[in-house]
Amino acid sequence: MIRYAHHFGDEEIDTTSIERGFDAIKEEMNSGDVGYYTLPVDSQTVVENAKALMDEIDKKYNTIAIIGIGGSSLGIKAIERLLRPKTPNAKKILYFENSDPISVNQEISRLDKRHTLFIVISKSGGTVETLSIFKRILATFDLKVERSDQIMVISDEGSILSQFADLNYLRRFIIPSNVGGRFSVLSAVGMVPLTLAGFDTVELLKGAQGFLERFLARHEDHLLKKAVFYISHRDRLPINVLFAYSDTFEEFGKWMVQIWGESLGKRNIRGERVGLTPISLIGSVDQHSFLQLIVEGPLNKTVTFMRISESEGTIMIPDISLPFLEKSNFVNGHSFNELINAQCMATMKSVIESNVSVDEIEWLSIDEYSVGEMILYYELLTSTAGALLEINTYDQPGVEIGKKILQEYFS
Amino acid sequence: MIRYAHHFGDEEIDTTSIERGFDAIKEEMNSGDVGYYTLPVDSQTVVENAKALMDEIDKKYNTIAIIGIGGSSLGIKAIERLLRPKTPNAKKILYFENSDPISVNQEISRLDKRHTLFIVISKSGGTVETLSIFKRILATFDLKVERSDQIMVISDEGSILSQFADLNYLRRFIIPSNVGGRFSVLSAVGMVPLTLAGFDTVELLKGAQGFLERFLARHEDHLLKKAVFYISHRDRLPINVLFAYSDTFEEFGKWMVQIWGESLGKRNIRGERVGLTPISLIGSVDQHSFLQLIVEGPLNKTVTFMRISESEGTIMIPDISLPFLEKSNFVNGHSFNELINAQCMATMKSVIESNVSVDEIEWLSIDEYSVGEMILYYELLTSTAGALLEINTYDQPGVEIGKKILQEYFS
Repeated sequence: MIRYAHHFGDEEIDTTSIERGFDAIKEEMNSGDVGYYTLPVDSQTVVENAKALMDEIDKKYNTIAIIGIGGSSLGIKAIERLLRPKTPNAKKILYFENSDPISVNQEISRLDKRHTLFIVISKSGGTVETLSIFKRILATFDLKVERSDQIMVISDEGSILSQFADLNYLRRFIIPSNVGGRFSVLSAVGMVPLTLAGFDTVELLKGAQGFLERFLARHEDHLLKKAVFYISHRDRLPINVLFAYSDTFEEFGKWMVQIWGESLGKRNIRGERVGLTPISLIGSVDQHSFLQLIVEGPLNKTVTFMRISESEGTIMIPDISLPFLEKSNFVNGHSFNELINAQCMATMKSVIESNVSVDEIEWLSIDEYSVGEMILYYELLTSTAGALLEINTYDQPGVEIGKKILQEYFS
Repeated sequence: MIRYAHHFGDEEIDTTSIERGFDAIKEEMNSGDVGYYTLPVDSQTVVENAKALMDEIDKKYNTIAIIGIGGSSLGIKAIERLLRPKTPNAKKILYFENSDPISVNQEISRLDKRHTLFIVISKSGGTVETLSIFKRILATFDLKVERSDQIMVISDEGSILSQFADLNYLRRFIIPSNVGGRFSVLSAVGMVPLTLAGFDTVELLKGAQGFLERFLARHEDHLLKKAVFYISHRDRLPINVLFAYSDTFEEFGKWMVQIWGESLGKRNIRGERVGLTPISLIGSVDQHSFLQLIVEGPLNKTVTFMRISESEGTIMIPDISLPFLEKSNFVNGHSFNELINAQCMATMKSVIESNVSVDEIEWLSIDEYSVGEMILYYELLTSTAGALLEINTYDQPGVEIGKKILQEYFS
């Protein structure tokens, strides 16, 4: 269960824009041009296919190595981190993302070749970091590719990586061509590794589908209102902060930054630069870092406070009174969960009092259903905002120039 | 060795403001009101005092647990992460920061009571997260406090935590009262744990002092120019991005976010809200996330590209040509270090071409001297920017309201 509330002040949210946003989503969905809307249903088959492999994989492997970057890793990491406390016995997942030599060395040294299943993920199939690391792993461990059941591929149908997989008779899963990388976590990209690792992906997809249906039935209009508020105030409020109170939101925050930043930072149909800048913070830690800027700095930010009312694991602050330190006794006998929730609410109150536009998202607990819901929530929020900005939410033309220049450096 | 370069376009940087910034720093330093300027020299004694304990501590402990948050942990983490690849045998450091019950449980379960030295760090001495976790650890491990050589305290002279330490005859180090928490990493806060862990803090202080001396001798005026550029364009460019190409900059980025955000987000002497919003990115990973927004989104950001020309650990991309994947062969036979450097330079070029204000910081390698230099660099940059904004760079009045409301929740 997730509860949403807005504290945007008294202003009326323009109903025409709300309807325009909703109609745009429906149109995208019905046209079939944007494929993520049907993933919560379509991926049920993907999960079944992954489950059919589990007996074999459970016997052979205790670790899954993901070789992928950006949309091919952020969503998996986000879900793993959120659900790990509830699923401690799921297989270990290692991530090979960055071309950083220190990280590549370090992660390779942690690998146990015999017990690791390698999953290579790239939508286009040509990601330079992913292919370079894949080659490095092949060479270091002298892995045979042909007919290997230790290497799996997830990519677009017909991509160069998919063709490579077929040539070598590797197991292969498809990313639907109408699903962009950063919207792909509920496709095979996330569902295959997470299912194989032992996470409850069936329930995750249910949570996503449940939210989508309620949204389409107009029972989640708060999302449309928030998108309209953000877009109509984008000149005054160009920065959107997610302030999430649990370390387990760290990777979710990075996933959110990608989907929001890369989807909305675009030239619109009139060629103007538009976009909103996402920032991910973790409470209470960032109360000691970024909060001062929110409270007293320029009023150019919205802030979303996220908290978990009932966290995994009860741990109490003992009822100990230490001489000279009695001023901290006011939390004695309470749980850390109570403390962090109270910190979130107190900080939120102080931020609202300093005239910042705030909304809150309260998770009753972190479970698979809620994680699926939150993914759909941010995807729909992004799509609605993109439609209102009159941009193509699903491409990323700005990153191509750098890739071209990179090739020139090596030629 | 660190090389600095600016690509701010043809605009002349106002020389009056440059002199005003420099004079303000000199005045702060000479007045003695701001204490971090003398830490590179003063902390030499702190390091010596820590070293005098090392024989004893090496025999007893292989792990250091830091109990601290914000300015009492971010800097230590930043330095540890950067220098760990060069100092793999330094003692393990565990961090107890957040009031997050999942993290507290998890970190406590990783503790080996017998071989862990606990260092409690809080400038004010009253940080609720720190004291709550400290009590939790005392109770869980049934630790005796009185005359314990397993518990150390770092705090302001005369703080409640220092008084508690003295009452119990604990080892104790002082944070000078004129050094703010977020400027304290070169005080005992960072120097004691890092020295005890086995990092070369002598060289680190040398790097800091070296940069300070060159700055004062006007050999590092690029810093003043950058501060003036940032402040004079703050309405148009309210966001400052640090795009650092190595995973080992992740914690440094968080340290930078704190010092920049919390120092500059203030009401100025006329009561106006001022400040600049820091964002920390990691390359190449965030090329697949945030870059699109920089290149095509609103021109409201500056970007600092940071890279390491010679990284620790040579690891090559093997000269393997895989069928269908030949388009990635252009990096074959090159090192990952060459790849990530070329990615940084190519991306920087593409960002400059899209009219973003860019500067670059190139580390020859990550060594102690350079890490010390970079800490002083960001501290001086922050102080100069703060002086130009006519604010108190060193307080954080905006976070007090939330603390008060928190107490009310529990009363």
